[in-house]
Amino acid sequence: MSRRDVDLADLVGRARSADPRAVARLISLVESDSPLLRQVAAAITPHAGHAQVVGLTGAPGVGKSTSTSALVGALRAADKRVGVLAVDPSSPFSGGALLGDRVRMQEHAGDPGVFIRSMASRGQLGGLSAAVPQALRVLDAAGCDVVLIETVGVGQAELEIASLADTTLLVLAPGFGDGIQAAKAGIIEIADVFVVNKADRDGATQLARDLRHTQSLGGRTAAEGAWRPPIVKTVAARGEGVADVLAAVEQHRAWLTSSGELARRRQARAAAEIEAIALGTVRRRFAGVHGSSALAAAAARVVAAETDPYTAADELVASL
Amino acid sequence: MSRRDVDLADLVGRARSADPRAVARLISLVESDSPLLRQVAAAITPHAGHAQVVGLTGAPGVGKSTSTSALVGALRAADKRVGVLAVDPSSPFSGGALLGDRVRMQEHAGDPGVFIRSMASRGQLGGLSAAVPQALRVLDAAGCDVVLIETVGVGQAELEIASLADTTLLVLAPGFGDGIQAAKAGIIEIADVFVVNKADRDGATQLARDLRHTQSLGGRTAAEGAWRPPIVKTVAARGEGVADVLAAVEQHRAWLTSSGELARRRQARAAAEIEAIALGTVRRRFAGVHGSSALAAAAARVVAAETDPYTAADELVASL
Repeated sequence: MSRRDVDLADLVGRARSADPRAVARLISLVESDSPLLRQVAAAITPHAGHAQVVGLTGAPGVGKSTSTSALVGALRAADKRVGVLAVDPSSPFSGGALLGDRVRMQEHAGDPGVFIRSMASRGQLGGLSAAVPQALRVLDAAGCDVVLIETVGVGQAELEIASLADTTLLVLAPGFGDGIQAAKAGIIEIADVFVVNKADRDGATQLARDLRHTQSLGGRTAAEGAWRPPIVKTVAARGEGVADVLAAVEQHRAWLTSSGELARRRQARAAAEIEAIALGTVRRRFAGVHGSSALAAAAARVVAAETDPYTAADELVASL
Repeated sequence: MSRRDVDLADLVGRARSADPRAVARLISLVESDSPLLRQVAAAITPHAGHAQVVGLTGAPGVGKSTSTSALVGALRAADKRVGVLAVDPSSPFSGGALLGDRVRMQEHAGDPGVFIRSMASRGQLGGLSAAVPQALRVLDAAGCDVVLIETVGVGQAELEIASLADTTLLVLAPGFGDGIQAAKAGIIEIADVFVVNKADRDGATQLARDLRHTQSLGGRTAAEGAWRPPIVKTVAARGEGVADVLAAVEQHRAWLTSSGELARRRQARAAAEIEAIALGTVRRRFAGVHGSSALAAAAARVVAAETDPYTAADELVASL
């Protein structure tokens, strides 16, 4: 066994003992596309598969960070270990994290039962970085009972976060985009639980009513045994309704298990993850085979109108 | 030669004679992922590569459709044949086209020198549909001198449209997102020409000044011989400034040619197109090999923690 293997085994062992520095180091390794990435994945996989993954999404300003923090507090009160991934699927150009203030999370900063990480990353194919499911697996293997994934509401990213989560919470608030708008954007379809935050404000009752109306128009409730997303009102800043949110998450968890949907979702998640990694490998092969780029040569032929892109693509795949 | 080949040759011939029904039929064939797709691509490629491709992007409300229509009018006055692709990269759930009113384009509806097509399509990988570059190639092969690609400003899609265009126009207007916001979103970096539309309104001068200031902060002007995107003011609804926009496009075209950037962009565009097609082929192979799904089997092993996703991905690629 090489020294590198020994270090990694030690790192995974310490992460499983809730050493925050070991967890942080493992996530950095999967984020940085380090040569150790594959070894890290192999080392953590036997320990993963136990965490409950809860996604939080919603428009800017609805109180996602506050809600996340309140959920962390409630889960800690129930003696659960909690991981938080705050994902910012921003423009490839911007680079920086735009994820609102993380100030509210600081109340959990000294708690060894909570691990918080911000990730501002986009993948090669324009979607979510492959590092996000890997970081999720690190937190899972490190013994987190629950991993919360929080993201800003920007369309495609919400769908991808939802694909990672067992249960997706859509956080709304009066005045920040109404329920009908969410329905139009297709976002409403990813919600397993609706959280109407800032429920002490004007318009909260109307927002909940609009959501219920939109639900009644949709087809999700029609099928026997289908999950009907509950609508939970909260004032996250004061902790009100947070226990109800956790109860709804538990009910959804029970439904996921009894319906077989949990197994289906985890299978789909693993398939998407493997496919993204495999396509990354294929792309690297296209870009450089033995020091030359098969793709560049094919592109030059298409530009010169010597071949069409489909024929060029077939030849490229055949060259693998 | 089969009857199918004969029909296709006839169709391409008629498209090249500016028969709008033949052009529409060819675009429908590439959009529908028809079995004829590869034959269409092979048939049109020898005739493509001549059109100048101009992208128009910007936030909703800035007057993109009006600008497109005004540009079409000016290009027609110069006796150019023009194609217009209006692309709506909407949510996979919404399905419908959200591309504002196309009413203003109707003034060109009876003109045989103008071909207009709306495409509301997303690709398998979440990016722009592979049909968009194919439709572009159809218009190119059909003898369009200029193809205008118009899209709504929604981040990633703008970047992808820019990657298809020789010259990208970023249309702005006072009151619809300021220049600094555009800079933050990374959108400003894709512009070859800034069009400040609705220049008769309050705030237009300030918007142009903000853009100039943002430019002076950026690094693009530093390099010797680099293109400095000009700022052109228009009132597209009255045709004011449209000739200046076309002049700026021509200047950019001259720079593209002399600097070698045109060849570089077209090479990159062809490479991206071939890669997208090849990755689509690879994904289909992952999904179904001889009636069974290698990917589903790999995912089941990862869910059971029998293997990690990297090892599973390597095996999947090796199975190709």
